[in-house]
Amino acid sequence: MIRIGIVGGTGYTGVELLRLLVSHPDAEVVAITSRGEAGTAVSDMFPSLRGRLALRFTEPEVERLSACDLVFFATPNGTAMNMAPALLQAGVRVIDLAADYRLQDRAEWEQWYGMTHASPELLGEAVYGLPEIARARIAKARLVANPGCYPTAVLLGLIPLLEAGVVDADGLVADAKSGVSGAGRKASVPTLMAECGESFKAYSVPGHRHLPEIRQGLAWAAGRPVGLTFVPHLLPMIRGIHATLYSRLKAGAADLQVLYEERYRAEPFVDVMPAGSHPDTRSVRGVNHCRIAVHRPQGGETVVVLSVIDNLTKGAAGQAVQNMNLMFGLPEARGLEGVALLP
Amino acid sequence: MIRIGIVGGTGYTGVELLRLLVSHPDAEVVAITSRGEAGTAVSDMFPSLRGRLALRFTEPEVERLSACDLVFFATPNGTAMNMAPALLQAGVRVIDLAADYRLQDRAEWEQWYGMTHASPELLGEAVYGLPEIARARIAKARLVANPGCYPTAVLLGLIPLLEAGVVDADGLVADAKSGVSGAGRKASVPTLMAECGESFKAYSVPGHRHLPEIRQGLAWAAGRPVGLTFVPHLLPMIRGIHATLYSRLKAGAADLQVLYEERYRAEPFVDVMPAGSHPDTRSVRGVNHCRIAVHRPQGGETVVVLSVIDNLTKGAAGQAVQNMNLMFGLPEARGLEGVALLP
Amino acid sequence: MIRIGIVGGTGYTGVELLRLLVSHPDAEVVAITSRGEAGTAVSDMFPSLRGRLALRFTEPEVERLSACDLVFFATPNGTAMNMAPALLQAGVRVIDLAADYRLQDRAEWEQWYGMTHASPELLGEAVYGLPEIARARIAKARLVANPGCYPTAVLLGLIPLLEAGVVDADGLVADAKSGVSGAGRKASVPTLMAECGESFKAYSVPGHRHLPEIRQGLAWAAGRPVGLTFVPHLLPMIRGIHATLYSRLKAGAADLQVLYEERYRAEPFVDVMPAGSHPDTRSVRGVNHCRIAVHRPQGGETVVVLSVIDNLTKGAAGQAVQNMNLMFGLPEARGLEGVALLP
Amino acid sequence: MIRIGIVGGTGYTGVELLRLLVSHPDAEVVAITSRGEAGTAVSDMFPSLRGRLALRFTEPEVERLSACDLVFFATPNGTAMNMAPALLQAGVRVIDLAADYRLQDRAEWEQWYGMTHASPELLGEAVYGLPEIARARIAKARLVANPGCYPTAVLLGLIPLLEAGVVDADGLVADAKSGVSGAGRKASVPTLMAECGESFKAYSVPGHRHLPEIRQGLAWAAGRPVGLTFVPHLLPMIRGIHATLYSRLKAGAADLQVLYEERYRAEPFVDVMPAGSHPDTRSVRGVNHCRIAVHRPQGGETVVVLSVIDNLTKGAAGQAVQNMNLMFGLPEARGLEGVALLP
Repeated sequence: MIRIGIVGGTGYTGVELLRLLVSHPDAEVVAITSRGEAGTAVSDMFPSLRGRLALRFTEPEVERLSACDLVFFATPNGTAMNMAPALLQAGVRVIDLAADYRLQDRAEWEQWYGMTHASPELLGEAVYGLPEIARARIAKARLVANPGCYPTAVLLGLIPLLEAGVVDADGLVADAKSGVSGAGRKASVPTLMAECGESFKAYSVPGHRHLPEIRQGLAWAAGRPVGLTFVPHLLPMIRGIHATLYSRLKAGAADLQVLYEERYRAEPFVDVMPAGSHPDTRSVRGVNHCRIAVHRPQGGETVVVLSVIDNLTKGAAGQAVQNMNLMFGLPEARGLEGVALLP
Repeated sequence: MIRIGIVGGTGYTGVELLRLLVSHPDAEVVAITSRGEAGTAVSDMFPSLRGRLALRFTEPEVERLSACDLVFFATPNGTAMNMAPALLQAGVRVIDLAADYRLQDRAEWEQWYGMTHASPELLGEAVYGLPEIARARIAKARLVANPGCYPTAVLLGLIPLLEAGVVDADGLVADAKSGVSGAGRKASVPTLMAECGESFKAYSVPGHRHLPEIRQGLAWAAGRPVGLTFVPHLLPMIRGIHATLYSRLKAGAADLQVLYEERYRAEPFVDVMPAGSHPDTRSVRGVNHCRIAVHRPQGGETVVVLSVIDNLTKGAAGQAVQNMNLMFGLPEARGLEGVALLP
Repeated sequence: MIRIGIVGGTGYTGVELLRLLVSHPDAEVVAITSRGEAGTAVSDMFPSLRGRLALRFTEPEVERLSACDLVFFATPNGTAMNMAPALLQAGVRVIDLAADYRLQDRAEWEQWYGMTHASPELLGEAVYGLPEIARARIAKARLVANPGCYPTAVLLGLIPLLEAGVVDADGLVADAKSGVSGAGRKASVPTLMAECGESFKAYSVPGHRHLPEIRQGLAWAAGRPVGLTFVPHLLPMIRGIHATLYSRLKAGAADLQVLYEERYRAEPFVDVMPAGSHPDTRSVRGVNHCRIAVHRPQGGETVVVLSVIDNLTKGAAGQAVQNMNLMFGLPEARGLEGVALLP
Repeated sequence: MIRIGIVGGTGYTGVELLRLLVSHPDAEVVAITSRGEAGTAVSDMFPSLRGRLALRFTEPEVERLSACDLVFFATPNGTAMNMAPALLQAGVRVIDLAADYRLQDRAEWEQWYGMTHASPELLGEAVYGLPEIARARIAKARLVANPGCYPTAVLLGLIPLLEAGVVDADGLVADAKSGVSGAGRKASVPTLMAECGESFKAYSVPGHRHLPEIRQGLAWAAGRPVGLTFVPHLLPMIRGIHATLYSRLKAGAADLQVLYEERYRAEPFVDVMPAGSHPDTRSVRGVNHCRIAVHRPQGGETVVVLSVIDNLTKGAAGQAVQNMNLMFGLPEARGLEGVALLP
């Protein structure tokens, strides 16, 4: 039984981790921390966990967490980078669901996140936790940087094209749409239902923090830097990301449907749908799958890839559990067998 | 392994049954029928089941279904009553998720459902499948009438008061609100998102088919006929029922919080929340629980009970699986251990 | 042209007032205040007003506001009571959309609102601004207390029964449901879309501030104190209130449909729907109407009244404009002629 | 007073036309037809119109409609093309809100719409009713083809770039998202709230009927054929379209913000927002405006244009009224002065 600690358990990635872990046969959550809610029973904050989890939130102390085998950080950016070194030192493995270790380039990280990195010496060791590109390295990692939600949807949608070198890597467009749970569980006016319900808008068009993370992953796949325009939008719904991805085919391209099916044939959580499909986000609600469809409208040179995930599951907590399974030698899908809630 | 057949698997109760049963360790769905979709792969209609269920819809034939241990009817009213006799004859047990066997009084059933009953001889044998009042009889039943969604929420909320005789049974009010999945998966204008989204209304105030079913269950609890006003409303959301229940205390009443906690202490799926609570429907989204809170505003003589369920789970398919577990001697919560999807 | 000032224009009642007033042929908004947003162009905060209103928010100063003919307070409770005396002194008329002058009983007000009243001497003069019961007094008022949203829906639904004395005034039940805009435009976790979307719950069952206000209005209609149970609920939608009202008929009651039609025959904003109707909230979205239907299910002794309004219009800003029209001798519906936005 | 007839008044464009026309000072709806609802009072179907419109639906007869000055067709595709010739013959002017006269190329129309055109001789005379490109011709037209909702949003967003020749016209991408009212008021499973609520998907990626219409309009602006990828998506909300438009700048391009502001300086219904803006669809809910923002992320060569409209107003009925105003010599904004309903 893996002894689990969760730092920062009051947000949506935290409660999603709890939902998955309380049903996981090989994991036991033994500590969950929240500076603001220390002493509160977790199930008082999240009645969905009544009868399933008897823990109370505690202060985030390294000493207590050091008794764990694995600590998840479900905290804002800038927290894990301060606590991870001591935990690793104590022999605890770490998965950060925030962005602290996602970018390998320290200067780029500090520019986009507006902070000095507190443990840059770990950037080289941290493994970017997208199993579909780094399964073997994740299995051996002490420190995993769990990918962002948009990056997961966009990378899984585009890497087959870039790995195969069949599209122009300079003119990629990722038009991405996210449910509001992506903004987190914090008091704010723009994500009030009366503000974002029954409305739709783009945001951060001049530049979003997930842009360098996506570019980094695409560059790995392409073997060279890429040109990407990334436009995120806010959907009037709670869960789900839909990425609509545009690229230009080079001459003489292969059969794209076959390309995708072969790239992901062995992947337990990537589902290449039949040609002509339009995946909807609800088909992955609450599950760790990414569903993908590839189109070439009117047989032209533009490829349109549709990629959907649940931002809190494959885009956060589910992928973190998948990484945990890999790190501890468990079957990759253990505890992630649920079926999407539809309708 | 229980061999399961599902008649009418293209609606919301059907797909919810499938969601629960594909993860159930002791059940295997071996046949699923749909007159209109015979030949279609189930996972083509419901992509959430891709990779989890290889079945295709078939014509509803008694012969094929007779090889099952248990057949669920997830059909419109009036279907099970025609096929159940032959299945029972063949030794198959039956759970009807529609209303065909819910009312013991044939005349009342025929009046409210506007049909002649095709197998009235089974009305006496059929067991009303609310485990909280009929667990032992369900375990031995060949034919279970799975309760309606509104009746489940209202009955669980009111029966402690009526069994204890602490309220006036003549002036009960049930103000109930349901998500739109309760209307089923059929083309219709009133349940289009552009019609029922961002709006709220009562419906069927002059009389709803669940009224006699609720009155029957309340009368069992009270030991006498009751007076009930039942007003259903349509919520602009997909899943969930909230019943707000009003009754008048008789003089010298007991501690209501204790009354509820004791009545449901041993129940795996009824959660009496702490005094002062306000359960929300999302706390039971996708799970088989009913959460209840009891209030006595300003210490007056009016009792207000708040009762929430997921209309598709405890209000339909989840309760059907709970009944199956009882009928086949399995632990009552087998396959129903998931945690509500929140947010 | 009436010169209008608005104190506190950054909330939902503020922007609704602006929507109505910029199209009002006899009113001109000359000042709008916000302590936090002084200097900001109103249309930068509310792009819906781009090209329609050139004002900027200013500090709330009595001197500037004294140049107005009428000042609306669209502020939190406890603001108007401090500024109204000076404005009245300066000859400005005042409509408070908050609760400061709604209760005639100072002690009750201070108990429910947890503050010492700063201008209790005005409680006797303030007119409760429900035109359907106080039209003549409003026309002459210097100070109008604009009713709460729930009270408007409940009072219009119940007063015909109480004025006519046909129901038991001791056992009234008001089961009310409101869209989330009723909670205001302020950062908070419970009204995030990810919290209240796709969910439904009751709140404040032990006691809500609108309870004494509703009881006061019902007592005026009944000519005696009433017994009322009031349970508010939060709907997963933005605008609209639906009150479902239960009462017991006394023996020998009149024709209720006729009773309602006659009571409201001359009212421009109360629409008694045909017998058997179920008004939906969208039928009043953005307009100042209250639509009402009266039912007597199964011909029994329980009367069920369905009453819908838009909480921001008839429940706040629209009613305030209606009151303004009365106070300044304009046709009562001036500027309120729009048709509900459907769908 | 313009005497108006509406053919096909039971859908969403029909009721939106009615909402606008009953408040229009120079128009009077004298006939409204529906084959299926002949005899029904319009306000029985749409309670939002109670007290504002006394008409009943009638059969669609040319004779009765010939007494009108103007007839709007708010019908499915393929209706207007059969009735328009007789009406024009009778001296009635016609605005078709469907697609019958939108494409100038008959063969292309017949291919995309799968019908033989019944009055191809009118294709040359019909004026494409986008006032921002055809104001003078609309004023003199007998027959106006009111643009589609997607085409309106996309064309207004892209034509400044194409007219100025500053982008590559061969690689345009229009990623468009629409509320569900765009699918119309007809019984169907995919637009049930339980199907499309809380979910998001693309549709018709292989080819949507609005594609040739958009290409036609873009070609007019560019003076040559264009290359366009158009991907529509279905939003879980009722009203609103958001088009996110991607194009590549040619070298030495002008100041785009200035370009847009100058192109639309005199337009009453196109609002170019300040640089850096992200328009939301609710800012145009119920009004005839298109709000546009222009971005050039990271100063690169990709231009991102954000364009929002209400699909039922500027995307259908509002634009039709704007065209009516032009055709009858009225001020262009007459009857379209309302402010968007926010929140």
